[in-house]
Amino acid sequence: MRIALIGAGRIGAVHARSVAASPDTELVLVADPVDGAAERLASAYGAAATTDVGDVFADDAVDAVVVGSPTAYHVEQIVAAVEAGKAVLVEKPVDLDLGRADRCLAQVGDRADRVMLGFNRRFDAALAEIHRRAGAGEIGDIEQLTIISRDPAPPPVEYLAASGGIFRDMTIHDLDMARFFLGDIVAVQTVPQRLDPAFAKTDDFDAAVVTLTAASGAVATIINSRHCAAGYDQRLEAFGPRGALRVENHTATSVVLDAAGSSGARGPYLDFFLARYADAYASELAAFVAAVRDGAAPSPSLLDGRQALALADAATESARTGRSVAPAPVPAPSAVV
Amino acid sequence: MRIALIGAGRIGAVHARSVAASPDTELVLVADPVDGAAERLASAYGAAATTDVGDVFADDAVDAVVVGSPTAYHVEQIVAAVEAGKAVLVEKPVDLDLGRADRCLAQVGDRADRVMLGFNRRFDAALAEIHRRAGAGEIGDIEQLTIISRDPAPPPVEYLAASGGIFRDMTIHDLDMARFFLGDIVAVQTVPQRLDPAFAKTDDFDAAVVTLTAASGAVATIINSRHCAAGYDQRLEAFGPRGALRVENHTATSVVLDAAGSSGARGPYLDFFLARYADAYASELAAFVAAVRDGAAPSPSLLDGRQALALADAATESARTGRSVAPAPVPAPSAVV
Amino acid sequence: MRIALIGAGRIGAVHARSVAASPDTELVLVADPVDGAAERLASAYGAAATTDVGDVFADDAVDAVVVGSPTAYHVEQIVAAVEAGKAVLVEKPVDLDLGRADRCLAQVGDRADRVMLGFNRRFDAALAEIHRRAGAGEIGDIEQLTIISRDPAPPPVEYLAASGGIFRDMTIHDLDMARFFLGDIVAVQTVPQRLDPAFAKTDDFDAAVVTLTAASGAVATIINSRHCAAGYDQRLEAFGPRGALRVENHTATSVVLDAAGSSGARGPYLDFFLARYADAYASELAAFVAAVRDGAAPSPSLLDGRQALALADAATESARTGRSVAPAPVPAPSAVV
Amino acid sequence: MRIALIGAGRIGAVHARSVAASPDTELVLVADPVDGAAERLASAYGAAATTDVGDVFADDAVDAVVVGSPTAYHVEQIVAAVEAGKAVLVEKPVDLDLGRADRCLAQVGDRADRVMLGFNRRFDAALAEIHRRAGAGEIGDIEQLTIISRDPAPPPVEYLAASGGIFRDMTIHDLDMARFFLGDIVAVQTVPQRLDPAFAKTDDFDAAVVTLTAASGAVATIINSRHCAAGYDQRLEAFGPRGALRVENHTATSVVLDAAGSSGARGPYLDFFLARYADAYASELAAFVAAVRDGAAPSPSLLDGRQALALADAATESARTGRSVAPAPVPAPSAVV
Repeated sequence: MRIALIGAGRIGAVHARSVAASPDTELVLVADPVDGAAERLASAYGAAATTDVGDVFADDAVDAVVVGSPTAYHVEQIVAAVEAGKAVLVEKPVDLDLGRADRCLAQVGDRADRVMLGFNRRFDAALAEIHRRAGAGEIGDIEQLTIISRDPAPPPVEYLAASGGIFRDMTIHDLDMARFFLGDIVAVQTVPQRLDPAFAKTDDFDAAVVTLTAASGAVATIINSRHCAAGYDQRLEAFGPRGALRVENHTATSVVLDAAGSSGARGPYLDFFLARYADAYASELAAFVAAVRDGAAPSPSLLDGRQALALADAATESARTGRSVAPAPVPAPSAVV
Repeated sequence: MRIALIGAGRIGAVHARSVAASPDTELVLVADPVDGAAERLASAYGAAATTDVGDVFADDAVDAVVVGSPTAYHVEQIVAAVEAGKAVLVEKPVDLDLGRADRCLAQVGDRADRVMLGFNRRFDAALAEIHRRAGAGEIGDIEQLTIISRDPAPPPVEYLAASGGIFRDMTIHDLDMARFFLGDIVAVQTVPQRLDPAFAKTDDFDAAVVTLTAASGAVATIINSRHCAAGYDQRLEAFGPRGALRVENHTATSVVLDAAGSSGARGPYLDFFLARYADAYASELAAFVAAVRDGAAPSPSLLDGRQALALADAATESARTGRSVAPAPVPAPSAVV
Repeated sequence: MRIALIGAGRIGAVHARSVAASPDTELVLVADPVDGAAERLASAYGAAATTDVGDVFADDAVDAVVVGSPTAYHVEQIVAAVEAGKAVLVEKPVDLDLGRADRCLAQVGDRADRVMLGFNRRFDAALAEIHRRAGAGEIGDIEQLTIISRDPAPPPVEYLAASGGIFRDMTIHDLDMARFFLGDIVAVQTVPQRLDPAFAKTDDFDAAVVTLTAASGAVATIINSRHCAAGYDQRLEAFGPRGALRVENHTATSVVLDAAGSSGARGPYLDFFLARYADAYASELAAFVAAVRDGAAPSPSLLDGRQALALADAATESARTGRSVAPAPVPAPSAVV
Repeated sequence: MRIALIGAGRIGAVHARSVAASPDTELVLVADPVDGAAERLASAYGAAATTDVGDVFADDAVDAVVVGSPTAYHVEQIVAAVEAGKAVLVEKPVDLDLGRADRCLAQVGDRADRVMLGFNRRFDAALAEIHRRAGAGEIGDIEQLTIISRDPAPPPVEYLAASGGIFRDMTIHDLDMARFFLGDIVAVQTVPQRLDPAFAKTDDFDAAVVTLTAASGAVATIINSRHCAAGYDQRLEAFGPRGALRVENHTATSVVLDAAGSSGARGPYLDFFLARYADAYASELAAFVAAVRDGAAPSPSLLDGRQALALADAATESARTGRSVAPAPVPAPSAVV
């Protein structure tokens, strides 16, 4: 499968490496409007480069497109790709505006089964194992899902300004995990925190506790913070009537120190998502390639991306009002302008 | 110090053993209206027995009273004890009715510094260590407190009917933990669950997620369930800007099994509070004895008992309304009828 | 049961507390030739005191004797006690001289079933659980037993001089563990170490690896050191064809710290045997009391004490010669002078 | 760097993938006398294939050779490669016969700094971290090294017959670890076991405890078994005066199950060396490539391979005689025929 990559930034480099390493895929084109960026990445893997993203859609040699551009371009590039007959793997979120995401869904229509959303955590070996084992009934139906998810340090202020806020930017991964494990969510309640004085000047938050009620009656709790001294804090526990399955934090190696002051000490947690989910990105790409090859609808879908965004919107509104908020339902296509 | 015990039930037996084992205290009298109950317990430790609780207050040889009677009798016995000049250690909760607790506080007045509330978890070695280390600044000011607290199995239906509901009966321990670690709480938000069909006929719940906002800006999350396959699930994590201190579940021994299907397997969690907090009950009694001996105000106080109850009321109301609820402030003594 | 205690030192105080705390036993007499020592300990528990050890054997009110005197007195006190018709719990080792231990066995004869050796580790909850589960076949027949056993710091030089050397003083506990789990031992091989320059002037060692071959074909490895920065290092693993059961080190509480430099850090190991095996001493006494009460032969027996000493002798000789040494068999009573 | 691979078996496939994945290396030729074997592996990576191993040495386009052939061919291929001016990475062991290894060393002479031995564990992230931290003095000088190393299941009987015995085939990795951490070894003592009746008919063993005394005074203990129900058991602990650094077993994911019968259960250990040391093989190749590129002597060296074999011989002899055995010193080149 011949793959083009849009966006030669940090996440683009991760995908380029996965495409090159796989015997099933070939990186044929890298597109990035930033001068020289595509060139630098493409040359490392023997691919062509362009600063004109339109080249990707025009190129008949391209079977599938991996979209790693800034969020604002996702919708137009999804639409252009499927209209050019190409499969798409697009980074989360679909968009920061739910209306635009709904219009994207309406425009893409049936061709949504050519689009996969890059919720990488679904492909983490440990999280996928819990999903599989819980799905097989090992702990009974999940009743409570607890997600602790903390970044090592807040992003730069400029990034925050364009991020859509903590719920659309950071929590959205955890919201997708809640849907992945519990299915449809009917209510969202948020207790937001502004701990760092730097956030006092913004309408954003740097920590929050979000509780979600699923249609099944299960409840998910998400505990977020924009900082964590020990590293990238990524824990999840699925609790059911017959037991609990949980994943603990990862450290760089399994070395343990026992010394005069303390025992059992490991290194700090892996430092951020590129380290913690390195294997997940490769598995995600492999799942995309397999789905496209087999003509199957890839999962997570464009709709999964829209639903996570609707939950992020609900969390944002709950943070503002202090009330429980139901996520906006998908509008009928005819109602989307 | 000569101690009388009111209530010869399960918790009474725990306190009787602690009193007998301590070189500083002597069990002189056990009172229980149930025929033969006081007799049985008293005889094991060479103490006198009575079915008339009034004997405890009338007996000049009694320095201090440990109240382990049903909740409905706590208020009257606290008042009678302090009026008889005796120090009191009373099991939680003060009462199931906040108005009665307020009247008790008003009646007891200055003599409240002779009353200690039996929030046993404050005396658990691990929880007390976290409190001490966090208080010493090891992790900075606590920003997020996460408490997972699950009972092994729900109590009998008859018990539930008189329990005051999950928040006043079970969560109240966790609510006290939130106050112990974070101080004053200004808002309570509850997401309740009714998982077991047996609860559908009641207005009680068998699981809940409760979030509390402290005056400091910190947020506590309490995750409760009335059942847990692996035993009595008791975890707590204090998270601050410089790190996190947490306590994991305890098992009966430290034995680990590595076998064909799995590795690292320990036994199930200790099965319930009498096992998990056995040492804490003894430390609690020792703290009470030391405070009385030194003329110091014991902690947790009668007011701590009232405040935990106010939080339980707020959690109950939030579960009903879906809204954030502020706990009721302590009324002026003049306002209490 | 009325119990007398010989020896009012550190270990005597442990036993005095256990005797006092048990509803089944009463401490009636404490004997110690050191001026005032017996008095101090006895007064705390309302017992009589004497500086004449002979009073213990002469006192008809004494049912059983706990011997916590220096090793050199063990043999004569065992013999005097059984001749006076009393049951005996004696601290390890029986003696430092195998010949004397053999003569003690011969003298005691059938009355050996009134004598119990204080190998406290057999009563540790975790080690006893492994013994029970392995005995029930959970991991198949044990093939390899690994014991890591390190003291926190070496004893004073004066203590060492009278200790009989590391194998008779420290390793003897591990040698008894090897017998407890594997039964008869047929060969002992030692690799000794002299790490601390202070030991260069002695013929003693401060570390060693001892391997033991059992009659069953199983092999035990004991890794000893007289120092350990992290505390009292006490680990054991029983490995069989169907899995392994192991016990890890204990810390004072279960508190874990995750911080900038490291994660998963607990406190240091418990600092020494009185802390690590506190519960085991109480269980040991309870087992002794139960055996005496039921007329059963207590275990570990006087013979177990003799056999552990024979292994310590073999380890000492192997350390000197570098060869594999078979432990000395029990001589026929007629051969003992 | 253009690399040729000799041997298209299991380990050859591992190296082929590493060579292909690295941007610094190119797989140009695969040689294997087995019909079709080289062809199959080479075609997956676009390399040439041959059944004539001599082609590797004759091909000027080949810079370096990775030798993954059966042990019996190692010596001649090492010599042929260095004589053809190529660098060599050769799988352990050098040979099963110490005399042949010594002759190889003599023949290779100064060109030994073009040869690297494939002791993959030195490149495991955890073991390398302990080596680095211990080397930096974090725990003081290592006094005791404990290695537990068990295979999941014994190899087929046919393999065993040609393996050189457990010490030259399996223990040799642990013997190299002892040298890696402790330097020169002066004495070896072995307690062998024959547990599986299938081994009774051979002069080989299926378990053993090997103790090694280092010139430094440190002692290493190696505990081996040819079977382990929980998987590939790979643990190592370096103990020094200031603490201990240890590496625990790895499981496929970090998922933990807490259920009715047990808590804290992870999956079994990774199943064998290809899984446990997958990353180590890639790091080993990278170290080889870096050394060759920089003209540095690669480590571990051909001499390291010879010394590990000398220790395996000593362990074999100690198993036979029950005595402590000194490893054979490297003979003077003039003494080697």
